Amino acid sequence: MGKLLIRGADLMTMRDDTFIIHDGAIVIEDDKFIFVGEEKDLPQEWEYDKIIEAKDQVIMPGMINTHTHAAMTLLRSYADDLPLMEWLEKRIWPVEARLKAEDVYWGSMVAILEMIKSGTTCFADMYFYMDEVAKAVEESGIRGVLSHGMIGVGPNGEKDLAVGRQFCKDWEGKADGRIRTMLAPHAPYTCPPDYLRKVLEIADELKVPIHIHLCETETEIKNIKEQYGKTPIQLVDEVGLFDYPVLAAHCVHLSDKDFEILKKAKALGIAHNPQSNMKLASGIAPVQRMLNEGLTVGIGTDGASSNNNLNMLEEMSTAALLQKVGTMDSTALPAGECLRMATIYGARAIGQDAELGTLEVGKKADLIIFDFSKPHLVPRHNIMAHTVYSAQSSDILTVIVNGQILMENREVKTIDEERVLFEAERTSKELLRR
Amino acid sequence: MGKLLIRGADLMTMRDDTFIIHDGAIVIEDDKFIFVGEEKDLPQEWEYDKIIEAKDQVIMPGMINTHTHAAMTLLRSYADDLPLMEWLEKRIWPVEARLKAEDVYWGSMVAILEMIKSGTTCFADMYFYMDEVAKAVEESGIRGVLSHGMIGVGPNGEKDLAVGRQFCKDWEGKADGRIRTMLAPHAPYTCPPDYLRKVLEIADELKVPIHIHLCETETEIKNIKEQYGKTPIQLVDEVGLFDYPVLAAHCVHLSDKDFEILKKAKALGIAHNPQSNMKLASGIAPVQRMLNEGLTVGIGTDGASSNNNLNMLEEMSTAALLQKVGTMDSTALPAGECLRMATIYGARAIGQDAELGTLEVGKKADLIIFDFSKPHLVPRHNIMAHTVYSAQSSDILTVIVNGQILMENREVKTIDEERVLFEAERTSKELLRR
Repeated sequence: MGKLLIRGADLMTMRDDTFIIHDGAIVIEDDKFIFVGEEKDLPQEWEYDKIIEAKDQVIMPGMINTHTHAAMTLLRSYADDLPLMEWLEKRIWPVEARLKAEDVYWGSMVAILEMIKSGTTCFADMYFYMDEVAKAVEESGIRGVLSHGMIGVGPNGEKDLAVGRQFCKDWEGKADGRIRTMLAPHAPYTCPPDYLRKVLEIADELKVPIHIHLCETETEIKNIKEQYGKTPIQLVDEVGLFDYPVLAAHCVHLSDKDFEILKKAKALGIAHNPQSNMKLASGIAPVQRMLNEGLTVGIGTDGASSNNNLNMLEEMSTAALLQKVGTMDSTALPAGECLRMATIYGARAIGQDAELGTLEVGKKADLIIFDFSKPHLVPRHNIMAHTVYSAQSSDILTVIVNGQILMENREVKTIDEERVLFEAERTSKELLRR
Repeated sequence: MGKLLIRGADLMTMRDDTFIIHDGAIVIEDDKFIFVGEEKDLPQEWEYDKIIEAKDQVIMPGMINTHTHAAMTLLRSYADDLPLMEWLEKRIWPVEARLKAEDVYWGSMVAILEMIKSGTTCFADMYFYMDEVAKAVEESGIRGVLSHGMIGVGPNGEKDLAVGRQFCKDWEGKADGRIRTMLAPHAPYTCPPDYLRKVLEIADELKVPIHIHLCETETEIKNIKEQYGKTPIQLVDEVGLFDYPVLAAHCVHLSDKDFEILKKAKALGIAHNPQSNMKLASGIAPVQRMLNEGLTVGIGTDGASSNNNLNMLEEMSTAALLQKVGTMDSTALPAGECLRMATIYGARAIGQDAELGTLEVGKKADLIIFDFSKPHLVPRHNIMAHTVYSAQSSDILTVIVNGQILMENREVKTIDEERVLFEAERTSKELLRR
């Protein structure tokens, strides 16, 4: 592949030194950025295989969804506005128990289609039948950080260990490096200390990070405290979890002591899921405090059944608004921080900030291009605030991952959209009848 | 104008008896619905001037934005993430003081363009140079409930009374009835009791309702209590406000006694503005309690400078999510109630529920058609939850107001979109240089 030039746009690089570049240009060769700067500084002698004219458009790094369960799109709007335990135990889990591999493939495909069309270029996933998710990632061109969810207390606890381990061995670094893997003990309340220790042994062996749900609800904290006399954070810390790289979803309810533990963690990323936390009435995570105390926080959508979409633009806006009203401080979580959370902080949370998260020479070429000629993006006072507080997923014209154009002028090039919508609809109907 | 038939869609009528109609059809003649039901029940002998095929699409009444300041689109993303008083006193008010009539026209036009493209068919507006807003409503085909904002404590208090009164006299019922008017004393802290009494005298004379900001922030409550020894609600009640039809924006902070007063109001509508309340860190309005106690609550976006768009779909979703996390009850404000708030409850809040807010024979023909063949709307388990929790404004294909097609397949027919974007950008830049 030769050089691809994109020119004329304003760039939001997410680098502290040059956050915004006006009249910018980007050159991609193979899977990497080889130029990010002002168009006037482009080397004159370069020739290009393709030029994308992006006058008046806005370019930023692709967004990183740090926590989701992609195939749960099959259960989108299947159960809403219910008490959490009724939702989970009576509606979601019984259907998930009937899932087949093919369902997960189509559910993941429609999720990936939605993610590409809303500007997500990388997602961290925890689910079952992960070979199917990996196949969907490989075929679609998106980037994935994939993990098999392990339930230690269930009948398949030992099997889950083996499946999760094998998945990492089979898929780590595959699809030109677009697939990375993690081990995913579901949560402290489903994976007791002894089980968690077994997971950490595998992490030692394979050198992959851990993806886990932590401190999502008050009930979880209460139950763990009753059972172990300590908070979930203290419990998993004593098992040694934070000696490993960890991607921790939620962290809604944290004590001062929990904060001290998290600050000493070796390589911790937190996935903040504001819409899911609101919809399930889990609570308001102390995100501004996390950032103040130097923790790494990315943004996630969680699964579509508690959201009900996988739209990272909505999630950024909601993160900002929720933090402001939650702290009763309108200066909390400003637009620039939200943009970083959705990109470079997210990259750091999944341990890939050396390669992802900014528009920067040498990094992997993952970017999205917004059309700003929309009524809701006029007048153009501030492109950061516009993107966080007003932009819509349909404003995203073009999506590039690993140097490959996955969507151009809203046409997804790597997925047969009509077929995926049809199969996802069919599969979900069959699943409910099963 | 002859008959317009729309067929093949699922209808969300917002009527309690037939909320959802599958394989529905709608017939519009002139400005009214003359058929709403199943397609198989269409009178066979009718002939149509135009047929819209809406197979697999979803139709609902147009959304009613019960509180905004449309022309503040000119200040979209001009000042964000600031403390409330710094935002208002140092950034917004100084610029608003330099506004000219032409600015308000273009600001309103770009707002109306955005509203039509995101499914709003009626908006309640409070601002200055309202003749310009009325002209924009007249030309664009949207429906407006317009009012001149009056500031009793300012140098123009008496003039505002005259201007507000004259505006109602000039525009009430104009544009084929699409324009309705209100009197708008800005708030208790800018309109003291004596001034408010003068406004009510005009309301007596003209028989128009009152649009007012009430109990938006804790500071407002505190200041009014210090000055008068009572809450804002108690203060305006003693002046007699609630003997008149009132559209009250915000009502974030209410005491038990305030609730008792509001429940006895003659014809009260509350405009809930969740995104603005979050962004300005005003607080979480007790919406579920309001509904439980029988109050009428609509949804509003507030102005674009505290939102930063005029997207009622976002506002519905945010209302639901905020209420759930605010009450820590995931069953609070379910999707169906949000849909009603954005339509029939909103119509009631502005005193027009006899004519607007449901798909119903005899009512004014205001509707929107969604394209549901989108990845984020698959699978189709529940069209109510999909609309509230997942739909995007760009899914809205067609918008009809008063029987006139304002947008078809996303093309707005009544507004020169390119010119409006250009003029809004130009005007806002001139305004900031002035």
